[in-house]
Amino acid sequence: MQLGMIGLGRMGGNIVRRLLRDGHTAVVFDQNPEAVAALVAEGATGAASLEEFVSKLDVPRAAWVMLPAGAITEATVAQLGDLMQADDVIIDGGNSFYKDDIRRAATLKPKGIHYVDVGTSGGVWGLERGYCMMIGGSNDALDRLDPIFKTLAPGVGTIPKTPGREGRDTRAEEGYIHAGPSGAGHFVKMVHNGIEYGLMQAYAEGFDILKHANSKDLAEDQRFDLNIGDIAEVWRRGSVVSSWLLDLTAGALAGNEALDGFSGFVADSGEGRWTLNAAIEESVPANVLSAALYARFRSREDASYADKLLSAMRKGFGGHVEPK
Amino acid sequence: MQLGMIGLGRMGGNIVRRLLRDGHTAVVFDQNPEAVAALVAEGATGAASLEEFVSKLDVPRAAWVMLPAGAITEATVAQLGDLMQADDVIIDGGNSFYKDDIRRAATLKPKGIHYVDVGTSGGVWGLERGYCMMIGGSNDALDRLDPIFKTLAPGVGTIPKTPGREGRDTRAEEGYIHAGPSGAGHFVKMVHNGIEYGLMQAYAEGFDILKHANSKDLAEDQRFDLNIGDIAEVWRRGSVVSSWLLDLTAGALAGNEALDGFSGFVADSGEGRWTLNAAIEESVPANVLSAALYARFRSREDASYADKLLSAMRKGFGGHVEPK
Amino acid sequence: MQLGMIGLGRMGGNIVRRLLRDGHTAVVFDQNPEAVAALVAEGATGAASLEEFVSKLDVPRAAWVMLPAGAITEATVAQLGDLMQADDVIIDGGNSFYKDDIRRAATLKPKGIHYVDVGTSGGVWGLERGYCMMIGGSNDALDRLDPIFKTLAPGVGTIPKTPGREGRDTRAEEGYIHAGPSGAGHFVKMVHNGIEYGLMQAYAEGFDILKHANSKDLAEDQRFDLNIGDIAEVWRRGSVVSSWLLDLTAGALAGNEALDGFSGFVADSGEGRWTLNAAIEESVPANVLSAALYARFRSREDASYADKLLSAMRKGFGGHVEPK
Amino acid sequence: MQLGMIGLGRMGGNIVRRLLRDGHTAVVFDQNPEAVAALVAEGATGAASLEEFVSKLDVPRAAWVMLPAGAITEATVAQLGDLMQADDVIIDGGNSFYKDDIRRAATLKPKGIHYVDVGTSGGVWGLERGYCMMIGGSNDALDRLDPIFKTLAPGVGTIPKTPGREGRDTRAEEGYIHAGPSGAGHFVKMVHNGIEYGLMQAYAEGFDILKHANSKDLAEDQRFDLNIGDIAEVWRRGSVVSSWLLDLTAGALAGNEALDGFSGFVADSGEGRWTLNAAIEESVPANVLSAALYARFRSREDASYADKLLSAMRKGFGGHVEPK
Repeated sequence: MQLGMIGLGRMGGNIVRRLLRDGHTAVVFDQNPEAVAALVAEGATGAASLEEFVSKLDVPRAAWVMLPAGAITEATVAQLGDLMQADDVIIDGGNSFYKDDIRRAATLKPKGIHYVDVGTSGGVWGLERGYCMMIGGSNDALDRLDPIFKTLAPGVGTIPKTPGREGRDTRAEEGYIHAGPSGAGHFVKMVHNGIEYGLMQAYAEGFDILKHANSKDLAEDQRFDLNIGDIAEVWRRGSVVSSWLLDLTAGALAGNEALDGFSGFVADSGEGRWTLNAAIEESVPANVLSAALYARFRSREDASYADKLLSAMRKGFGGHVEPK
Repeated sequence: MQLGMIGLGRMGGNIVRRLLRDGHTAVVFDQNPEAVAALVAEGATGAASLEEFVSKLDVPRAAWVMLPAGAITEATVAQLGDLMQADDVIIDGGNSFYKDDIRRAATLKPKGIHYVDVGTSGGVWGLERGYCMMIGGSNDALDRLDPIFKTLAPGVGTIPKTPGREGRDTRAEEGYIHAGPSGAGHFVKMVHNGIEYGLMQAYAEGFDILKHANSKDLAEDQRFDLNIGDIAEVWRRGSVVSSWLLDLTAGALAGNEALDGFSGFVADSGEGRWTLNAAIEESVPANVLSAALYARFRSREDASYADKLLSAMRKGFGGHVEPK
Repeated sequence: MQLGMIGLGRMGGNIVRRLLRDGHTAVVFDQNPEAVAALVAEGATGAASLEEFVSKLDVPRAAWVMLPAGAITEATVAQLGDLMQADDVIIDGGNSFYKDDIRRAATLKPKGIHYVDVGTSGGVWGLERGYCMMIGGSNDALDRLDPIFKTLAPGVGTIPKTPGREGRDTRAEEGYIHAGPSGAGHFVKMVHNGIEYGLMQAYAEGFDILKHANSKDLAEDQRFDLNIGDIAEVWRRGSVVSSWLLDLTAGALAGNEALDGFSGFVADSGEGRWTLNAAIEESVPANVLSAALYARFRSREDASYADKLLSAMRKGFGGHVEPK
Repeated sequence: MQLGMIGLGRMGGNIVRRLLRDGHTAVVFDQNPEAVAALVAEGATGAASLEEFVSKLDVPRAAWVMLPAGAITEATVAQLGDLMQADDVIIDGGNSFYKDDIRRAATLKPKGIHYVDVGTSGGVWGLERGYCMMIGGSNDALDRLDPIFKTLAPGVGTIPKTPGREGRDTRAEEGYIHAGPSGAGHFVKMVHNGIEYGLMQAYAEGFDILKHANSKDLAEDQRFDLNIGDIAEVWRRGSVVSSWLLDLTAGALAGNEALDGFSGFVADSGEGRWTLNAAIEESVPANVLSAALYARFRSREDASYADKLLSAMRKGFGGHVEPK
C-alpha cells in the first residue's frame, strides 16, 4: 500500500526503504531537497512542499511524521490536520510525549482524522533487522495500516516462540503491538526507553567494577588483570546476562578496551525523564531507573554545586580542606 | 578425559551428564546414595565416600566440587587437600567468595595442588544450552582441563561473531574464559550476578510502571489498559531491550499476566552483596546495583522499622497519624 | 494590621491566634461555622460567606487562603478574584504547586490584584515557635504585609547569628524571606520538603541498621543490644547529626523503642514529587531525594508487581521457587 | 582524675585541654615533641616515649589512643598491651572499625586489660561545645572513667529535655552513652557517620535544585533568581529542616553563595563504607545512605569508565556520537 513520509533522516529514510523493498509505494517530503531526491532515486515519489505531499497521497491518506519530538512535530501535525480530511490517518513515529498524543488525537477527532502514535525501537539497525513497534490508535486505523506494520516489523524470524502464547495475538511475535488508544504506543515506548537506561547502567556499573579491579591502588587480594573485552564476549553465550546491549558492548570493547575516544559525556532523550514522571504519578518506586538517568545528568557536570556544598560543610564541622 | 564430581544436585548432575554425552568419563560422589546411583545408571563411576572417590580418580586427579558456597564447600576442599597430592586439581564450581578462593589456593600451593575456581552461569538450562564459565587458576591447570571446559561451554553456536575480535582468544566465543589467577573466576561471576540483579530490577520497575498505568486511580490522560504479556513479547524482536531475561519474562507473563502464585518475596544469594562490597572497596559508584539488591531486602519485610520511624517523625512535627 | 483568613484548620486557626496575640485584627471564614465561632470567641471578626468575608475587610484588602492544595484552593482564589479589586492582595499559604501560583498571578494581574504565595513550615509547633515562611510576590505587596509576616515569624530568638551575614537582609534571620516573584515562595518550600524527606530517610535507614544490629540472626561479631532511644538522645548533644528532626525522633523513641502503634504505612504530600520533577527538568541528579520518596511509595505496598516479576524470572532461569 | 593521651592532633590535644580546664590531670605523648611541649605548657605531664608515658601513669592506668584508624592505632594498642598490666584500660577514641575493637578486646582480655572504644563526634567544635561520645566496654571500665566522660561531654546545656525520658539513663542527656560491650561504641559512631553522609547529601541535592532554578537554560515558568544564602538562613528558624549541618551551610553560603574555592572533590572516611557493609550484612535496604557515599565517589572522578561505556552502547545501537 501507499505511505507518505515526512522527515527523511536516518529513521524516516530507512523506513521508506524497507517499505519500497517489500513492494509498497511511498510519497516523501523533507525540508532538505537532497534527502527527497535520494529516495526518489530509490523509487519513491517526491514532494517539494507539505501541500504537494498531501495532494499526491491517495485518499484515504496515510501520512507518517518522522521528525524530532517537540515543536517541529507539533507544528507539522497541526499543518497536516489543516490540509487533510475525514478518514485520513496521521502517524507520529517519533518520540513524542504520550500526553501530547492524547491531546492531538482529541483535537483531530472532530474533523474525523485518525491519529496513530508509533513508538519505534531499532535505531540504525532497523532497515536490516526490522523495527519493533508499539502502536496507539483506533482499531480502524490500525487495521488499514496493518500491511505497513507487517513489512516494517522484524517478523518471527529465528527467535524461538514463547511457550504458552499459543492462541494469542500473533502481531506481538512479529514485532508490533496495538497497545491501546492514542498515546498508548508512545507510553509503552517511553517505558521501554526507561528500562533501556536501567539495563545500560547495570552493565556500565558492573564493567566499571571489573575495570577498577585492575587498579594498582587495591590490595593484593582484590586486584586482578581482567580482560574486559573477553568478559563481555563470554557472557554472550549461555549466561543469564546475555542481551543485545551486551552484544553491542562486546563489539565496542573489541580492540578498544580502554574505550578511548569516548568523553564520558552521556546525553539523554526525554523518555527516561518522562518514565520517572510517570512512576511518580503512579506512586511506583523506581530507584534503578532513576539512578540510571541521574548518572547521565552527573556525567555532564564537572564540579557540581552539590559536591561543593559537601566540601563546605566538611570544612565547617571538621576543618577539612578537600585536596585537589 | 576423566573428571571427578562431588555434589550431584541439579548443577553437578547435569554437568556430569553433559560430559558423559560428549564421551568423557566421570567418578561421582554425593552424600545422597540415590543421586550417585542415578548417575551410575547413566554411565558414571560411583563412590561411597570421599576416600573412595579420590582413590578411583586417575592421577593426576581432577575433582570438581559443586556444593553450596560456605561451610560445606570449605570443609570438602580441605578434606580433598588432605587426600590429594601434588599436581592434582581441585575445582570449585560453586558460588564461593573470591577471597576464599585466593586463601584456599595459597593454602594448597605448598602441597603442589592446583586450585581452580569456576563461576558458572546457565542455571537449569545448562545441560541443553551449555554453561558459560569464568575460570580462575594457573595456565597449567587450565590447559589440562581444557577438554572439559570445551564440552561444557555452549560453543560458538548460531550467535553472530562480534566484529573486531578476529585474532583474539577464541575461548571467549565458545563460552569460557581464563579470567586470571585463583579467585578471578569467581570475581567475574560475582560481578556477573550483580549485573544480573540490576538488569532484573530494571525490567521489574519498568513492567511495574506499565502495570500501574492500568490503574483506575489514575486520571484519564494517564490510564491505559495495556497487555503486559504482549509488551514483553514484542520487545523480544528488534528492540534495544531484548535479552534472555526478557525471553523468560515473556514466558512467565504468557497466560499469567497477574503473576498469580508469586508471593513477591525475593531471595538473594551472596554475589549481589559481594559485588557491592567490591564496589565500595574500589570507590566505584553503583547506585543501580545497590538499588537492585535493596529492593530484594525490602521485598522480604512487612512493616519496616525505618518506615515506622518516618511515621513517628511525621506525627511529631505535623500531628499526622498515618492511615491504615 | 488586619488580615482576612479563609480556612480555619490547625494551620489557619493558629496563624490567626498568633496574629491576635500580637495585636493584629482578623476577619475569618470557614465552611464550618463552629471553626468560625471558636476564633470569634478569641477576638476575630467572623463571616458566614465568602461575600461577607470580603465585605468586612478594610480596603486595600489582604486575604489569606489556608486550604488544601488543589481544587479547593483553586476555586477559592478564583472566587476571591471575582469579589476583590485592584490593589487587594490574595495570599495562598497552603502547599500549592508553584506553577499554579505563576498562572494565578498572571490571571489576576490585569485586574490589579496582587497574588502572594507563602510556603510555611512549622506544623503544629508554629503557634508557639513561629512559622518559617518563604514568600513569593511583588515588593509592594510584601512591604504592605510585612507586619503580618514579622509577627508570624519566629524572630531571631536565642539561635546564634550566622557569622558573615552582617549587612544582609535581616528578614531571613527573623524567619521569613522574599524569595522572588509569585511562585518563588512555594518553589523554595517545595525543595524544603524534598530535603525534609531526604533527612528523614537518612535517619530512618540509620536507625534501622542500629535496630537490626540487635538481631539474633547475626553472627556474634555483628550483634549488639543497643538502646535505640538512648542513641537518639545522645546525638542531640554535640553531634554532627543533631537537628530538630532528631529531637522529634528522640521523643518518639522515649518509652516506645519498638515504635509500637505505627503501621509502617507512610504518606507523602505533593512537594516531594514536585521536587523530583523539578530536579528532572533541571537535569540535577537527586538520588537521595528520590530514594526517600520511593521508600514511602514502597511502604504502602504489600507484594509489589516488580517483586513478583523478579521471582518469576528467578523461577525461569534457575528453577528457584521463592519461599514464604 | 588522670588520663594518658597518645596522639596530640586537633582532637587529642583539645580533649586534653578540656580535661585540664576541668581540673583533671594528663600525661601526654606524641611522635612530634612540639605537640607534647605545647600541652606541657598548658599543664600536662609530657613523655618522650611510649615506655615513659606508661611509667608516668598512675596504676590502674587509663590510656587514650587518639590516632588515625588503621595500622598506627593497631600497632599502638598492641604496644600498650605489652607495656600495661591487669586492670589497666586502653581507650581507642579514633575511628576504628568495630570488628577490630572486638578482636582487640578479646586479645587483651586474657591479660586482664580493659579495652574501651569511644566514638567521638564534635570535630573542631568539641573543645568549646563538648564531645558527643558513644562508648563500648565493660561496666567496670566505664564506671572508673566516668569523671573523664562527664567532663568531655557537652552536658545538658540549654537544649530542652526530651519528654518521656524521665527516669532513664541520664548520661545520654549529658552527651555520652554506654552503648554496649567493646565494639558497640564505634558501631554506633559508624552509623552516626553514615547518617551524617545522608543528611549532608539531602541538603546538597536540595540546594543544587535551588541553584539550578536560577539557570538561564530553563523555561520562564521554572526559572527564578533565588538567594541561596538567605534560604539557608531562613530555614534555621522554625523550619522542619533546621539542624547543626544547616547552621554550617548557612555560614558557608554567607558571602560566598557560589561556593568559590571548593573544588567539588569530596573525601570520605571509612565509616560511610562500613555502614553500608553493615546494612548489607543485616539485609537492611539503605538507598539513601548508599547514594550519599556514591556521590562522593563520583565527585572524585572525571570521565568515568561507566559513562564511557554508556556512550559506546549508544553509538552501537543508535549511531549517536556524544557531543563535547
